[in-house]
This record gives sequence, structure tokens and C-alpha cells, in this order.
Amino acid sequence: MPASYAYLGPEGTFTEVALRTLPEAATRELVPYVSVQSALDAVRAGEAEAAFVPIENSVEGGITTTLDELVAGAPLMIYREVLLSIAFALLVRPGTKLSDIKTVTAHPAAQPQVRNWLKANLPDAVWESAASNADGARLVQEGRYDAAFAGEFAASRYGLEALETNIHDAENAQTRFVLVGRPARPAARTGADKTSVVLWQRDDHPGGLRDLLGEFATRGINLMLLQSRPTGAGIGNYCFCIDAEGHISDRRVAEALMGLKRICLQVRFLGSYPRADVRPEEVRPLLPGTSDEEFAAAADWVARCQDGRF
Amino acid sequence: MPASYAYLGPEGTFTEVALRTLPEAATRELVPYVSVQSALDAVRAGEAEAAFVPIENSVEGGITTTLDELVAGAPLMIYREVLLSIAFALLVRPGTKLSDIKTVTAHPAAQPQVRNWLKANLPDAVWESAASNADGARLVQEGRYDAAFAGEFAASRYGLEALETNIHDAENAQTRFVLVGRPARPAARTGADKTSVVLWQRDDHPGGLRDLLGEFATRGINLMLLQSRPTGAGIGNYCFCIDAEGHISDRRVAEALMGLKRICLQVRFLGSYPRADVRPEEVRPLLPGTSDEEFAAAADWVARCQDGRF
Repeated sequence: MPASYAYLGPEGTFTEVALRTLPEAATRELVPYVSVQSALDAVRAGEAEAAFVPIENSVEGGITTTLDELVAGAPLMIYREVLLSIAFALLVRPGTKLSDIKTVTAHPAAQPQVRNWLKANLPDAVWESAASNADGARLVQEGRYDAAFAGEFAASRYGLEALETNIHDAENAQTRFVLVGRPARPAARTGADKTSVVLWQRDDHPGGLRDLLGEFATRGINLMLLQSRPTGAGIGNYCFCIDAEGHISDRRVAEALMGLKRICLQVRFLGSYPRADVRPEEVRPLLPGTSDEEFAAAADWVARCQDGRF
Repeated sequence: MPASYAYLGPEGTFTEVALRTLPEAATRELVPYVSVQSALDAVRAGEAEAAFVPIENSVEGGITTTLDELVAGAPLMIYREVLLSIAFALLVRPGTKLSDIKTVTAHPAAQPQVRNWLKANLPDAVWESAASNADGARLVQEGRYDAAFAGEFAASRYGLEALETNIHDAENAQTRFVLVGRPARPAARTGADKTSVVLWQRDDHPGGLRDLLGEFATRGINLMLLQSRPTGAGIGNYCFCIDAEGHISDRRVAEALMGLKRICLQVRFLGSYPRADVRPEEVRPLLPGTSDEEFAAAADWVARCQDGRF
């Protein structure tokens, strides 16, 4: 397998910074791609071992480009996640003052995270979207725009200086990234794991979605993300991207997935992988009756009943 | 009240075309605004009677800018919805051939709807985002880009011609727009109505969302949209924008909203309004036991029991 990771480039973006926090990234060649789609296509085509892309952030929610790529096409699997706190710096050519700034740029995803800051500090600046935050910095270097919102780490690369740092409209602004590869055995259970699936309802009826969620709730499984995505069959037709606490080797999770497989039109397993937000010792206690031991004991009891030995 | 409707401008976009399908638009001054935020702010400030903005489309799902504006800030209410089929034309300066096109532009929301067409027909064209589809057409007129994706109706306004029409990656591509005003009495029940609410969970626990949806399911109410939106309190913290079938004056809907009011941290009522997708005679039959008459009869029966007269 080629020892390279594709990632959403260019170099010098938050994605690269997040990727470099993974120990395994140190032993791989890291190759920037121009889009989430092209990075994931490289994995599907076998050109890269895995791809590292943003999937959720605390301001915009699920990142729809990534979710839509995972929902459709050849199946892929998530193996790792990384959480990165996001704060923007306002990068300018050396000597530029705040009052000189007429145009600002950044990736469109940055806009909701700096909107209030802009309104308060640069109410008349014209926003122009860039292909990435790093590309915005490059365009400032070239003189096309006056200022770019990007990571402070991008300043030196483009010969810019940070006029302002730590810009973020929401406290605790974070982006979640995932390392995505071709389907294989999931990462081993750590005790603080997350399982991602996509669900398609069999038909649309009152209580349909409640019943799907009941497969998790009945087994004491907490949900961490529920993001509806259009199926492409017209307004009101959605599938559901769900992140649930636990690992597919946990009995409660395995049983919930079996339940979903029975009642859904389609279930796509997107992987079980270690959670980046908590360590195993920090995971919330299981609800009574939902541990592996209790599932095993209950299965034994039913088997004995079936055998007349209760 | 000022007799004007704000709408997401500029002129010549799908939004204006959709707005003009509303009979009441004929008697109002229609004023374009540069953003969803500014159009809704005009309503909140009393400068406009109502604002007309996109809220959902069949390719991208819920339009997050609009949902986030309705979720936060001074309360607003939805009074009408309009569904518009979306197909793009590729607009160029007269005489341009497909092989001449090096750069294409449109609003970022258009990109997922034309992505496959682009890949098949203009794989090397560079995409540049425009503030709106109409603005993209203007930039083509000015010579800044070679081609713009926009409604075919925009061609004549900008002296362009349509090199290709009816471009849409997904069949049945539709956008849903809403007319939003300050809170007042909802539009009267028509028999084919929709009720929109935003729900905030009291706390995060296994089954929490299932229980919220149970308030609808228990009363036979079908959901048409469930879109999670970040609360701003960090990754994994979401509120839920929900569209449900029925009108707040339907007893089943009123009782579901009362249930949600009891169990949620917060409920924001966003309005009950006529559905644009079906006429009253086309609405699916109610589940047994969920009609107004059955709710009334059941309430009478409980009252008689409380009185010892059953």
C-alpha cells in the first residue's frame, strides 16, 4: 500500500496542522489535494493509503462536501479523528494598518467564524472568497487583496504579518478532521470510541426517524452527531449521518447496528475509531444493563430458556 | 407597516423569480438585499414587512445561513413557502464557444449542482465563486470570467447568451424559499400545512433526541425536515430545526408542541404555513386516532372520568 496520506491542501492550512498531530503522519508522505473530493478519490483509486479531511465544525456543523462524499460512491472508512481549536489571524503585508484594509479574503467556511469580528472592526471591507485560507494568504502576498483570515502559522510562509490574532466569533471554535481509508478491519476498541453510520429510511412515515433512533436509545447508546443529507431524490428526501458513542465490537453497538440493518432500506458503516474528545477514563458511565457482560449474560439466559434449563 | 418585501438579491436570481410567484408580491415593493442576514435584519428593524429567502434545497439540504438567522436573534416567523425547480444555464458573452471557456463562476451554492456537468464538459475550467449567480453573470459581461452558471432568465439582463441550458446534476433539483415576517398570528389552516420549530435539548443523554421526536411520532405527525445546527457551545452541541406536517391549530400539533415545551430546554416556534408541495386533497391520510375530532372526544372522556360520569 502506498505510504502516503492525501489531505485537503494547500500546505499551510488548518488541515495540515491537524494532520501533523497524528503520530502515524510522521512516517508518511503528506500530499496536498485541491479538494476533499480529489483527496478521497485518490484513496478510492489506490493512489493514497488514506485521506485527511475536515468533517464537522462547531460553527457550521457537519461539513457537507465531506459527508456527501462518504455517503455516496465506493465505500470508505474512518480510522482516526482529530479535534483542532480554530482561531484566525488577520494576515496583511508588512506595514498595512487596519484602516488600509478595503478587501478581505479566506475560504468561505471561515466567513461565519469571523463575521461578527468583521462587522465590529471592518464593517466596510469587501469579502472575496478564496479556494483555501492559505490561498487567500497567497493572494494577499500578491497584492490582490488587502488582508486574509488564516492560521497564524501561515504568516511566515507568505511573508505576511498578523495584524490581529485569536479571532473567532464562537468560543471553543473547533474543527473535527478524519483520516479516511478503504474498508478494512476497524481500529481496535480503546474504551473511548465512536461509530459512524449512514442510514436510509425504508419509507417516510410518522415515527420513522424516531424508530431508527430507538435502536440506539434502547441500548443506552448516546448520539454525538445527527446530520441529515439530501438523497438527491428531491426536497424532503434525506439520509442521516450519525455518530454514536461506542465501538462496533461493543455488544450494544453491534446489536443496534443489526437492528438498523433489519429496519433500514440501507445502512453504510463508516467505521469505529478512537474519540479525540475524551480519554477512556473520562467516558460517561454506561446505562445499567448495557455492558458487554450484561449482554453476554442475557444471551446465555435466553439460550438456557430455549433449552429448558433456566 | 411598510408595504415592501426584502429579498436575497441582486435582481435576476432564482430568489426573485420564486418571490414573484407569490400573489401578494404583486402589491409590494420588492427590495433586493446583499445577504440573507441583511434582508432579515430589515424585517427585524421594521424597514420591511417581510423577507424572502432560500431555506432548503434538494442538493445541499437546509441552507445554514438562513436557518442560523432564524434560530438566533429576535424571533421571526415563516408565513409562506415557495418551491422552485432549479436548472442552470451556462451563460457566456455572444460568440464564446465551449472550448474558449477557461474560467467559470456562480454562487458557491450552485457548485454541487453543476459539479458533474463541469467534470464531464469543462474538466479544466477554473471555478471562481461569485456573490450571487446574477453577480457571476455580471462579471462575465465585464469580461472577468468566461462563463457563469445562472438562471436562463439572467441572460438577457446581462447581454449574455446561454450556451447550454437545463444543467442540473440531480433530477428534481428544487429550492424551497420562505417569506419571513415578525411574529403575529399564523396564516389560517388550509388542511395542507407545515409547522416549523427549533428545539434545544435540556441535556445530552442516550435517547434524548429519540424522546423529542417521540412527541411528534406519538401523535402521528410526520416530519419533513430535521436539520441539526451547532449551538455555538462547541463540537457536538446541536439544536434541531424541524418541519412537521400540520398546523399549530391542529390538536395533534398543538399537543406535540406542548409536550416539547415541557421536555425541551427551549422551543422556538417558527410558524405554521401552507405547504407548497401538496394541495389539501393530496395530503396523506391521518393515522387512526389523530384527528381533531378524536382528540376532542378523548378530552371529553377524560373530563367525564374526572367527574365520575364515564
